[in-house]
Amino acid sequence: MPNKPLSKEKERFIEQLGERGLIETIVTKFNANVNRQIVTVGAGEDDCAVIDVDSARGGRKYLVVTTDTVQESTHLPKGISPFQIGWTAAAVNLSDIAAMGAHPFAFTVAMGIPAHTETSFMEEVVEGIEKCASAYHTAVVGGDVTRSKEVILTGTCFGFADRPVRRAGAEIGDLVCVTGSLGNAALGMNLIKRDREIKVPMKVEEIAKKALFQPLPRIQEGIALADSGLVTSMIDISDGLALSLAELAKSSGVGFEIYEDKVPVLSEELRTAETFDLSSIGVERRALAFYGGDYELLFTIDIDANGLKRISETINMSVIGKVTPHEAGIYFKKGEEKEKIELVGYQHF
Amino acid sequence: MPNKPLSKEKERFIEQLGERGLIETIVTKFNANVNRQIVTVGAGEDDCAVIDVDSARGGRKYLVVTTDTVQESTHLPKGISPFQIGWTAAAVNLSDIAAMGAHPFAFTVAMGIPAHTETSFMEEVVEGIEKCASAYHTAVVGGDVTRSKEVILTGTCFGFADRPVRRAGAEIGDLVCVTGSLGNAALGMNLIKRDREIKVPMKVEEIAKKALFQPLPRIQEGIALADSGLVTSMIDISDGLALSLAELAKSSGVGFEIYEDKVPVLSEELRTAETFDLSSIGVERRALAFYGGDYELLFTIDIDANGLKRISETINMSVIGKVTPHEAGIYFKKGEEKEKIELVGYQHF
Repeated sequence: MPNKPLSKEKERFIEQLGERGLIETIVTKFNANVNRQIVTVGAGEDDCAVIDVDSARGGRKYLVVTTDTVQESTHLPKGISPFQIGWTAAAVNLSDIAAMGAHPFAFTVAMGIPAHTETSFMEEVVEGIEKCASAYHTAVVGGDVTRSKEVILTGTCFGFADRPVRRAGAEIGDLVCVTGSLGNAALGMNLIKRDREIKVPMKVEEIAKKALFQPLPRIQEGIALADSGLVTSMIDISDGLALSLAELAKSSGVGFEIYEDKVPVLSEELRTAETFDLSSIGVERRALAFYGGDYELLFTIDIDANGLKRISETINMSVIGKVTPHEAGIYFKKGEEKEKIELVGYQHF
Repeated sequence: MPNKPLSKEKERFIEQLGERGLIETIVTKFNANVNRQIVTVGAGEDDCAVIDVDSARGGRKYLVVTTDTVQESTHLPKGISPFQIGWTAAAVNLSDIAAMGAHPFAFTVAMGIPAHTETSFMEEVVEGIEKCASAYHTAVVGGDVTRSKEVILTGTCFGFADRPVRRAGAEIGDLVCVTGSLGNAALGMNLIKRDREIKVPMKVEEIAKKALFQPLPRIQEGIALADSGLVTSMIDISDGLALSLAELAKSSGVGFEIYEDKVPVLSEELRTAETFDLSSIGVERRALAFYGGDYELLFTIDIDANGLKRISETINMSVIGKVTPHEAGIYFKKGEEKEKIELVGYQHF
């Protein structure tokens, strides 16, 4: 390849590029699209990033903050691209901001990278972080790079909200709802685990894997729900519907009755492309909904026909059940059958 | 040990305690001393922490943010205790806040922990984080726990400032100053590396190791310097004096002339306890100052006899040189000898 520039050859691995070279590359990318009215000092420009509070907050009362890590060995599915690794690191944090109904504005990311990582891999990770953040009007204002044994990305995301929606607040009689659809990422995961054994239409595989590899945090939905004033509690579904229901039940001191047939499993795009039989890959609808990874929002709303109509005109959502007394526990109802929901979901330890 | 409760026995390792058990332990510790006027939703209480902006900012204009990782294999010296690991994770971040002259108020920490870690180890790490943060009036408002191959702690720290002091701003003729003293942590590092070969007084070893294992971020000094209005540039000395001088020179577009004899090497406590000969352990004064780890502040001030007097009455500081034109580079001067300072310091890659 005579046209490949020598400098690229020399810096194929980040250990050759050096920490300072690496940081310069990253900083240039992160600062390219930053709003300088808000971010007066950006990533890599000083000891700290500096944000003009009044420009950033838009009059909102509360600063909300969350931090979340994604890591090669435990969080990242096989086949994910470097761009999607970066995207995911931003998306999981933005999803927590969405779950408060807050407006995100800034993000920092600490990257642990093995020394033999290719420079192009890092560039794509950084591109993924930046693209996800900027898709949600969020500036990447800071970071840190260290040498580690595996790829590990810790993001911290900041938002502003006037009425942050808590996990506590659901009242008996409220409706239980979710945004979008569940199980898309879980289908992707199933396809990856068994990719040599089963055949599904190419289109199905493509959509399901994208849901798994590049989740979409529900920022606009979270904001619309908070602004409606009708939402009594909210959480994101990062580790599956069952675990999120359990968290909400615990925080609000309530129980839930969920109508199995109402749970929106698989997106319309997947359902219409679905010319295969789920059971042929050994997957139940309910198992899909229970797996997580779609980063939809689970929320409860005050029962009010007008309010419900207003919200459902604004965002893609489904009513899946109702809030019951705490003593009743969490039940999944299919016709007349009632089954207590077991608490399954991902735990790191 | 018949009195040791069974439950403790059962939960000796965090993999036995489980993620939720671990998080509950951590959250209880972090939320114990939080000011609820400021932190309306604390660590582990919801998808995000929620901070009342106006209570937190005290009328200050800018939010400053930094993120920094400490990691077993690359950042932590041999012999450091779990408490001190936690302390260090908070201190390195607070030091960046200090370098802007900002008031810290909140901290989040993502902890990567091997599954076989003892519960008591984690409790001490968490204790160290909390004690360091609260020593500087900073609330630990959020976190994340994941299973990783080694102990890796990523902190993100938030502060407010009215006039954040930048790295850029030093003017030719300004005085170059440092807070406190340098080389204490470096002496500790030397003692650890050669602990079987050399003898130093117990007191010296104790002080030097404490400087290395439990650094003190210069928050009050940073605030006093920013408030003085006389400081033209500032940075913390995390990776040694030479590297911090180089960064400041680059950002401000200036050079430095440093008087070797004026650089305060070793604290008064160490110097008065120093009944041993540094050269016996093969360490030069200059090498100590160049190593870093003390997290002192390096800053430049407008030359003004009254201002200098006022600042030096408030904080423990030394004038170590003056700002020169950029073309002059960075020189270390000892009597009539001038030596160009090489850029040495820690790089991760």
